[in-house]
Amino acid sequence: MPDDIDRYRVRPGHKVHLDRWHTAVSALYDSPADYDRLRGEYLGELRGRQQLLYADDRYALLVIFQAMDAAGKDSVIKHVMSGVNPQGCQVTSFKHPSAEELDHDFLWRTTRALPERGRIGIFNRSYYEEVLIARVHPEILRAEQLPDSIAKARDIWRKRFESITAFERHLHRNGTQVVKFFLHLSPEEQRRRFLARIDDANHTWKFNVDDMAERMHWDAYMKAYAECLTATSTQHAPWYIVPADDKKNTRLIVSRVILKTLAGLRMRYPRPTAAEERKLKAIARKLRRP
Amino acid sequence: MPDDIDRYRVRPGHKVHLDRWHTAVSALYDSPADYDRLRGEYLGELRGRQQLLYADDRYALLVIFQAMDAAGKDSVIKHVMSGVNPQGCQVTSFKHPSAEELDHDFLWRTTRALPERGRIGIFNRSYYEEVLIARVHPEILRAEQLPDSIAKARDIWRKRFESITAFERHLHRNGTQVVKFFLHLSPEEQRRRFLARIDDANHTWKFNVDDMAERMHWDAYMKAYAECLTATSTQHAPWYIVPADDKKNTRLIVSRVILKTLAGLRMRYPRPTAAEERKLKAIARKLRRP
Repeated sequence: MPDDIDRYRVRPGHKVHLDRWHTAVSALYDSPADYDRLRGEYLGELRGRQQLLYADDRYALLVIFQAMDAAGKDSVIKHVMSGVNPQGCQVTSFKHPSAEELDHDFLWRTTRALPERGRIGIFNRSYYEEVLIARVHPEILRAEQLPDSIAKARDIWRKRFESITAFERHLHRNGTQVVKFFLHLSPEEQRRRFLARIDDANHTWKFNVDDMAERMHWDAYMKAYAECLTATSTQHAPWYIVPADDKKNTRLIVSRVILKTLAGLRMRYPRPTAAEERKLKAIARKLRRP
Repeated sequence: MPDDIDRYRVRPGHKVHLDRWHTAVSALYDSPADYDRLRGEYLGELRGRQQLLYADDRYALLVIFQAMDAAGKDSVIKHVMSGVNPQGCQVTSFKHPSAEELDHDFLWRTTRALPERGRIGIFNRSYYEEVLIARVHPEILRAEQLPDSIAKARDIWRKRFESITAFERHLHRNGTQVVKFFLHLSPEEQRRRFLARIDDANHTWKFNVDDMAERMHWDAYMKAYAECLTATSTQHAPWYIVPADDKKNTRLIVSRVILKTLAGLRMRYPRPTAAEERKLKAIARKLRRP
C-alpha cells in the first residue's frame, strides 16, 4: 500500500483554495477486478484493526464526512464500512436539529453520539454544519436564538472554529482519534447524479427537492468549506479533501486513510496480569476435571 | 429456503421445558463450502431487505439476543450482520447499569437505545436481564431500590413479564417488529469454549473470571429462562430457541429467522406523488439545460 494518500491531507496552516484541489484524479485501480481485489484487501485489514481496537479498548475512532449533496457520503459509508462488525461501529446521521437540540450549544447533540472507547463512530454530517449551512443560510443561525453579542459578532465563525478545534484537541487527549473527510465533487458530476436519481424510479426517493435549492448556493458553500478546512485541519484531527467524481476512487482513498489512522494507534490484545494468570489456571484445572 | 425454522419458535402459551429443546441438531449445511454459499446467499438477501427497510422508512426491526456466556451472541452478531450497511444497523450491548440507569424503571435504559424507523437495532442482552440475572442474584434487584411492596411481592416476576409484553405490544403497534433469540447452549459445550478462551492467549481477554461464577448458577438460570420464554413469547414478539452447540448452525438459523421476519413486513420503495412528480420533472428540465 503506497503512502501517497498524504497528498489529500490539508496540512495545518495551509490556506485551502478549493479550485486548486482536484475533484477527479486518475483511477487508483487498473480495472474493476483490481478495484474488487483492493476493496477486499482493505476490508480484511479494517476488520482486523477494528477487532484490535475493540479488544484493546483504550482508543476510539471518530470519522467525519462532510460534502455537498450526492457527493457519495452514504455510498462511501456503505462500501467502506459494510463488512466490519456492526457491534464495534456506529453511524449517526445529523439532519434538522430538534427543538431540544436547538436549545443547547452547537456541539451538544453530536457530543451525545460520540463513539465509546473501543469503537468506530461515523458522523454523516456533523457539528461542521454549524460553520457551513449555518453560514450559507443566516435563518438557521437565527433559529439557535443566540444573544446578539454572539450571533452578530463579526468573528462568530472564527470563534466557532476555535470551539471546534479545542473540542477535537480534548477528544484527542482522551483517546478519541478524529479524522475528517471532505468529499470534493464537481458541480457537473452533481448534475449528472441528480438526473440519474430522478430518472431511476427506484432511486427517486433519495432525491429531495431541497437538494436543488442548495445547489444554487454552490459558490457560497465552497467559500464556507474553504475557510473551514483552512481553520480546522490540525495535526491531531486532520481534514482530507477526497476527489469525489469517481466513487470507486473515493472509497479506496477513504479506506486507506482510515487504515493509516488506525495503524497509528499503539494497540495490543490485553494480556492477563500475573495474578489474573494464576486465577485463570485455577479455573482451567477446575474445568478440566469436572 | 425451506421454512422449517418455525420449529425453533416458542408458540404463545406453550410451556417451555428447556431439557426438551435441543442444544444441537444435525448440520443445516452439507460442507464448509455449502455453509459459505448459504451464508453468502442469506447475506445478499439481508442487504436487499435492509435497504428496502431504510427506503420505506415505516418499520424498524428490533433483534434481541439472550444466552449464557460463550453461547455465541457476539459471534452471531458479527457473522450474521457484518456485510449489512452499518448506516442502517446499530448494535447495543447492555452491561452493568450505571447509577443514573438504576435510578429509572427497568425498561428505561433499553428504551433509549431502540432503533429508529427504517433501521435494524440489535440488543446484545436486553431488558430481559431484569427477569434473568436479577432473579438469580437477589442483590441485583436490591440495587434497584424498589419499594418493598414491589420488590418483595411474590408476583414481582409475573408483573415484570406483563410490563415487558405490554411494552413489546406497544412497539409492534407503532411499527417496530421485535424478534428474540435464546441461544441454547449445553454446559458441556460452554466448558469446552471457556477452556479454549483460556488456552488461546489472543482470546483470553474475552474470558472474565466472573463467567465461571455464573456457570455455577446454571440450573437457576435455566429455570429463569424457561419461565421467561414461556411467559413472553407472543405472536407479535416471538422467542426462538436456537441450538447453539454448533456456531455455524446457530448463524444460519438466526439469519433465516431475521429474513423471514423482514419478509413479513409490507414494504415498498417510496414513489413520488403526482405533485412531486411534476416538481421533479421541472428540476430535470432545468438540469438538462444548464
